[in-house]
Amino acid sequence: MIIDVLRATTTISTALDNGANHIVPVEKPEDCTRLKANNYVCAAERNGIKLDGFDFGNSPQEFTKDSIGGKNIALTTTNGTRAMIAASSARNILVGSFLNLNALSLKIKDLDADLILFCAGWKNKFNLEDTVFAGAVIEQLKSNFEIADDSSFAALDLWLSAKANLADYLQKANHVQRFKTLDAESDLDVCLKIDSSAIVPVFRDGKIFSL
Amino acid sequence: MIIDVLRATTTISTALDNGANHIVPVEKPEDCTRLKANNYVCAAERNGIKLDGFDFGNSPQEFTKDSIGGKNIALTTTNGTRAMIAASSARNILVGSFLNLNALSLKIKDLDADLILFCAGWKNKFNLEDTVFAGAVIEQLKSNFEIADDSSFAALDLWLSAKANLADYLQKANHVQRFKTLDAESDLDVCLKIDSSAIVPVFRDGKIFSL
Repeated sequence: MIIDVLRATTTISTALDNGANHIVPVEKPEDCTRLKANNYVCAAERNGIKLDGFDFGNSPQEFTKDSIGGKNIALTTTNGTRAMIAASSARNILVGSFLNLNALSLKIKDLDADLILFCAGWKNKFNLEDTVFAGAVIEQLKSNFEIADDSSFAALDLWLSAKANLADYLQKANHVQRFKTLDAESDLDVCLKIDSSAIVPVFRDGKIFSL
Repeated sequence: MIIDVLRATTTISTALDNGANHIVPVEKPEDCTRLKANNYVCAAERNGIKLDGFDFGNSPQEFTKDSIGGKNIALTTTNGTRAMIAASSARNILVGSFLNLNALSLKIKDLDADLILFCAGWKNKFNLEDTVFAGAVIEQLKSNFEIADDSSFAALDLWLSAKANLADYLQKANHVQRFKTLDAESDLDVCLKIDSSAIVPVFRDGKIFSL
């Protein structure tokens, strides 16, 4: 499962919930632009900021029914889409966010296979929000899986520290602090709406769609 | 600060406490052997096991006053000595273990410089015990430092989850589980003796000694 809860994987889930057909994660902004010729809506973000000349950035609040219903989206972001492309040879790739926590956990139980929780982090570094979400997934699945490494124990304990008041807990996270300078503070609550969506976004053959 | 609490940095602290002159961390067992000609005691461990033909492995319980008092030691281990060598260009390198938590924290406050807590982990992967120790250091220093990244917040929270019953908490850690197959279980309590030592081990010009 690919995890970039602030904000790529949340944005993807929101776009699919609001009727987007599929989303193609791409590495570079120019890959995005190239798909525009095929009637893709183009979304590009770097360092939290929408790039000039693109239709959207990476805020889930931009991806409304009116703006993307029935459309295909090409998306490139600082961390999340890079993680997806890095993982693209895996057999089953789920796209994880708090919005789909329960739906994803049920799907994972069905798959009955080894699970890697791939936290996108921030520029190849650890971040708190993706790890805490990984811990939430582990809490849901721990009676069905054997935990293979210490990072999963740590993620679970961080989630257990955070869950009673998730938004408050995450205030200290670097990226939440960064949101203040990006005028993106209202995105945090949107990204923490646990189980607000019942869809299961999957990445297969280059496209993310709802199962 | 280099951190490999199970067991290299604890072993180093114990050896210095018990009267070793200095310890030279080396990359390979053959580097260890080479120093034998210069009257070094040779300690070599891989995958938790003492290598054949060496005087010691990596258990702090081997490094008694009788066995290493007044001697110089060459040491190579799976993770800790690699981390030291990787960090050897840093200006001040402290060697961190629970044994010296308070002594090290006081020294760090004196140094009044940026601090990196370098957890050796296990074969380039995260481990729980080193991160929990890093969190203990952060708890002692947090009013003197600004925390720069999410991994430090996570380490602190893991320590706060663990501190009330540290030995019990660490039972789930991969390396503590590994101790059972290595007949090294009694080392855990030795490695968790918080503030049992007042020395400050430093690594400078290729040698670790007590300041």
